Formats: sequence, C-alpha cells, structure tokens
Amino acid sequence: MLERYGHGGDLESAAEAYGRSGFLDFSANINPLGPPPGVMEQLEQALPSIIRYPDPGHRALKEKLGARLGLDPGQLCIGNGAAECMALILLGLHPRKVGIVEPCFSEYRQLSEQFGAQVQSVFGTRAHGWRADAAEIEGLLKSVDLLFIGQPNNPNGIQYDLRMLRHLAGEAERSGTYLVIDEAFIDFIPEGRRQSLIQELDQFPHTILVRSMTKFYAIPGLRLGYAAAHPDLVKAMTGKQVTWSVNGLALLAGEACLNSGESYEKDTIGLITEQRSLLTGGLRNLGCDVSEGEANFLLSGLPSPWTAERMQTEMGRRGVLIRSCAMYPGLGEEYIRVAVKAGEANEQLLKVMAEVLGSRDAF
Amino acid sequence: MLERYGHGGDLESAAEAYGRSGFLDFSANINPLGPPPGVMEQLEQALPSIIRYPDPGHRALKEKLGARLGLDPGQLCIGNGAAECMALILLGLHPRKVGIVEPCFSEYRQLSEQFGAQVQSVFGTRAHGWRADAAEIEGLLKSVDLLFIGQPNNPNGIQYDLRMLRHLAGEAERSGTYLVIDEAFIDFIPEGRRQSLIQELDQFPHTILVRSMTKFYAIPGLRLGYAAAHPDLVKAMTGKQVTWSVNGLALLAGEACLNSGESYEKDTIGLITEQRSLLTGGLRNLGCDVSEGEANFLLSGLPSPWTAERMQTEMGRRGVLIRSCAMYPGLGEEYIRVAVKAGEANEQLLKVMAEVLGSRDAF
Repeated sequence: MLERYGHGGDLESAAEAYGRSGFLDFSANINPLGPPPGVMEQLEQALPSIIRYPDPGHRALKEKLGARLGLDPGQLCIGNGAAECMALILLGLHPRKVGIVEPCFSEYRQLSEQFGAQVQSVFGTRAHGWRADAAEIEGLLKSVDLLFIGQPNNPNGIQYDLRMLRHLAGEAERSGTYLVIDEAFIDFIPEGRRQSLIQELDQFPHTILVRSMTKFYAIPGLRLGYAAAHPDLVKAMTGKQVTWSVNGLALLAGEACLNSGESYEKDTIGLITEQRSLLTGGLRNLGCDVSEGEANFLLSGLPSPWTAERMQTEMGRRGVLIRSCAMYPGLGEEYIRVAVKAGEANEQLLKVMAEVLGSRDAF
Repeated sequence: MLERYGHGGDLESAAEAYGRSGFLDFSANINPLGPPPGVMEQLEQALPSIIRYPDPGHRALKEKLGARLGLDPGQLCIGNGAAECMALILLGLHPRKVGIVEPCFSEYRQLSEQFGAQVQSVFGTRAHGWRADAAEIEGLLKSVDLLFIGQPNNPNGIQYDLRMLRHLAGEAERSGTYLVIDEAFIDFIPEGRRQSLIQELDQFPHTILVRSMTKFYAIPGLRLGYAAAHPDLVKAMTGKQVTWSVNGLALLAGEACLNSGESYEKDTIGLITEQRSLLTGGLRNLGCDVSEGEANFLLSGLPSPWTAERMQTEMGRRGVLIRSCAMYPGLGEEYIRVAVKAGEANEQLLKVMAEVLGSRDAF
C-alpha cells in the first residue's frame, strides 16, 4: 500500500515501491495549471529573504486575505497547511468527543485521536449519493463537542446545501458544539455553486471554516492554509501555535497568489469542470462506478474483481499514481480516488487503466 | 517594546515602531555569513518542486543527518524549526511539571504553560557567571517530569561542562525525568569546546537534544530543526506531529546545507570567535557589563541609567535593532542581547551605541 503516511502524493514511497521515478501523480489533488503566473518568479526574487525570520503575526497576509474574503484580520488564523489549522482547533478547543461524517479526510479522525478525543461517526452511502442523512448528522452534532464536515467532502466531492449547513450551524449554537467545515477544495467550485457560510460567520460564533491555499494555488510543498472564525476561537487557536510555524516563503506565496488576478481562477475552474466531466465519462467507459461530485477529484469503484490495491500497483509500475480508498471506513476495497488534471494527463490515465484492465497477466 | 511576539528578529514590528526599514538586525542570532555557498542556487533550482507535497517521513534528510551525527535515522525527529521539536516533546511526553534554568529561552516556559504544564525554575546569577548551582539544578530535575536546559544557554551563552551534564543525565535516568538539552546554538562553538552528550545518547534514554538548522545555516525563514533521542521518544514526538509539518524547501535546504562542506563551518566559527572578542571589548569600552559566553550573541548590562527599552528605541530609530532582555525573569531592565555579526556590522553597532550614549537629548 502506497499510503504509508495516510495520504496520496507520496512520491518517495512510490519510488521505493515501484523502483522508478517520473510519475504522473493522480493521488494528490493539486491544481494542474500549477501556481498562478508570476508567482514562481516572485518566489525566486524573494528567496534571499529566508535569512530572516518569518513575521510571527502573519500580518501582511492576514490583511490581504481579510480584504479578499470580507473578513476582519482578527477572524483569521494562518496555518502551516490546513492540517495545522485542524490541529490548532483541537488543541485550542480540546473537545472530548468529535463527530465525523464518513467516508472523509482521514486527518479528522487521526488528529482527534492524536489529541485525546473520542471519535463518533455517521456514514454517507453510495445509495444516497454519498450524503449522510441530515437528521443523523444533526443527531451526531448534538452528541459531540465538535463536528468535522468536508465541503466539498474528500474523497467523494459532495457538497451539502447552504440551507442544511445554516440549520446545522444554528443547532451548533444552541447545543454549544463547534462546527468545523473543511473547505480545503471549495475554491475549485464555480463561485455561484459554492455552498459556504463564509459571509455568515458573524451569526455563527461556533462555526469554523478551514481552507487550504496549497491545493488551488499548487504550492503544497510550501504549506499554507487558514481558518476563519470568531476572533475568540482564532485566539484559542493561535494560543496553541508554535512561533514562526508558518514559513516566510509560504507567507509571501500566499500574498502573491491572492494578487494573481481572476483569470487564473476562472481558467482553473473552467478546466476542472470540463475535464471532470470528460474523465467521468472515460472511467465509466472502462466499467468504473464513478460518483458525481463537484471537486477536483473523483471517487470511483473499480469493475469487479479489481481491488484498489491491485490497480494501484499495476498503474504505479506503469508510472501512474492513484489513491487507494480501501482504508476509508465506509468504502470497500474496490474504491479509488483520482485527481482531475489537464486533458493530456487524464487521457494518459485512461489509457494506462485500459491497458491494465485488459492485461491477461494481472490475475 | 519590540518583542511583541516574545522574540527578536521581528522586522515588521520594528518598521511599525520606528517608521523606517533597512535595519541592521542584532536582535536575531543568525550566521552573518548567510547560507553556505551554493545553497541559494540549489534552492532556486528546487523551487518548482513546491508543486508537490513534502516527504511526510523526512527520509532523505534523516538519512543524511544520521550519517553526519553518527546516529540512526530512528533517533531523529525533524521539526518545523527547533520550536516545533520542543512543542512535540511536550505534546508527546505530556509532563505535568517542567523545570527550567533561568534566565533562558522564553519558549521553554511559554510552550510548557501552553500545553498545560506547571513550570518551576532555578536561577543562574551574574555573580556566578550566570551558571545556576549544580545541586540546585539536580534538585529541580528530581522534582519535575521534564527539565529544559540551554547549551549554550540563551541569552547568556554559557555552557555547562560535559561531566556535569553526564551526571545530570544519569540522575534523569534514575528519577525517570526527561532531560531536554537545547543545543540550538552549539554549532557556533568550536568542535573541541562543545559540551554535548550526542555521542552518549544510547546510555541516556531519557535525554533529548534539540538542535536548530536555521541559525547556523542562516535559513530562519524556512524553519528547520531536529531532536535526537531514543527511538521510543522520537516515536512519541512524531505521533503528535502534523503531517507535512516540515515544508519541502526546508527539507531540501537541510540536505544542501549538510553537503556544503567543512570550510563554511570553520569560517563561521572562526569569524564568530574573533568578532565576539572584539565586540566584547568594544561594548566594555562603552561602559557595558558584558558577560563571558561561547555563543554567537552577547548578554550585556547597559551603563546606568540606561534601560534596554530606552536603548532599543534610540538605536531602532537609527536603524539598528537590539534585543531587550528586560522581560527575562532573572534579568534587570538594563540587560540587552546583541548578535555577533561580521566586523563592519559590529563596528556600526558600536558606533551607533556610542552616539546614543553620548546624545544629550536621550534623557
């Protein structure tokens, strides 16, 4: 299994496992356009600044991000990746019971257990388009101290609609539960379709939104994410943050990305929307059971008797990395997740998968 | 006060406070030679790699560092700066009582309290060359779950000798106390004079050494540190580490720095040794009470009636940043810390301080 550290994008493990390099990586969900135009050049120019400490207050990025989102800088916590924001939420608010809606990003459970919380879950199922029952989610919310929910959810790309989220956030206020909505991939969704409470945070002081800047802006190596929430919750989070946790180049990259203009964002969303549709069709032609989702990745069941592990190995040997989802609670061993990349890469994925599915020596 | 976030090197706060930029920064203790030759070029070439996730297992750097130090990679925990290593120690070993030897790096207390421990301390005093009494340190060690000690200690640059440390580490084994020796600045000390248990870790499974790679190699903006300890303690630490906490460029920079060869290291140590002596003399000529230390910074009392805050302000207005040590428990309001930099910069520091001391309008 390639997910030795619990995630995709692990090229070192892939190199060890398959004795080769130069992979086409569909196991991590990164913007196929790469960073916005000019960002690499700005980082190159900024490299000499690494001889100085980063700003421990993240002041310039908070200002710019706040202006962009229509939030006060005091409502923002900048993190060393979205994962650090989640850790800071758990450390700062120390919930004893955490609820999750499975299948979901593995770190919700892992970080919660790592920091001493008990985890309870409800499940979305294939039969219901991977959405969990709203009443079950609400019941879970009321019985825990903190609930994580992915929006769009990883690995299936589903969104819950705004009315449901608003109701849930209201219930969270009444029951005193923290509602953490993980919007790490929401920037890939066309603005008109995004279901986000970001403009309504003032009404829901128990709701925290977590976002990533490394996936959409294609800078995962630098680590950058943020949380938006009531200033009191932000203070609780930053109170647990190690000084200089966010490195200087990440802070600069964040500013540069926010400056990069709308056309890159539109191009990205247009490409993902178009290619997700093409890739869905191509995978279905190969006999895969592809779920409808709105993110830049697709959850897919393989045709019987293929398992994710077997397919991952066969494709990995051929230089294409996919994510096995067999370890997600609620998913069978036939589930894989693939990123939506640009046309040529997606065609290569389909070609290699077709080759593997047609090979006689695979079984 | 410039140390709004508890540390030196905060150029943003300085710019706000003094309405200018272009500071000569003696408030952070970074190698004045800058990064080793070739490292910047290697990072420039490696910039495109930020579109991929960092290796969550830090495998290549651990191998290289282990070979360099004569340690097994399993004895090493790579951190997002030495400060993260300290946080992981506290999170992984969850001591209820922590001991510190003051005056010392403020994060020992801050992180300990942040993660719920009670802090007890003993003090080194000017009269005893800033060393705390060995029996008092031993008494403290026996009454806590974890003891932090700086070697060389920040802000006074003192080392405890190896025999004393060995005895302390032995007592730590007997009492079941964790002994954390912060060697963040030890690389600046000539190898023959370094008092480190790094070759004896096998005998002391309760001892953890914490080191920084950002100070000696002048890459604080990237964040990189490590801890060396028994594999069980390393596992406890990494068990609390957020995935991808160490960014990809920091990992690559670490490898590049370790590859950079001995002459950079010798040049650095030679420069610091020579310039520390010159700077000590220059400060004493100005009436300062400079403490003997072995690190790349000097603790100094200002001539009466000067306070650190007043001097910091006057020098900051003139473009030179120094560290006020007035907030260190155990130090009076007349204490400052200055980094040892290269000759020209040090002369500028002395010149500006002389100007301030001689100015009539300061009082």
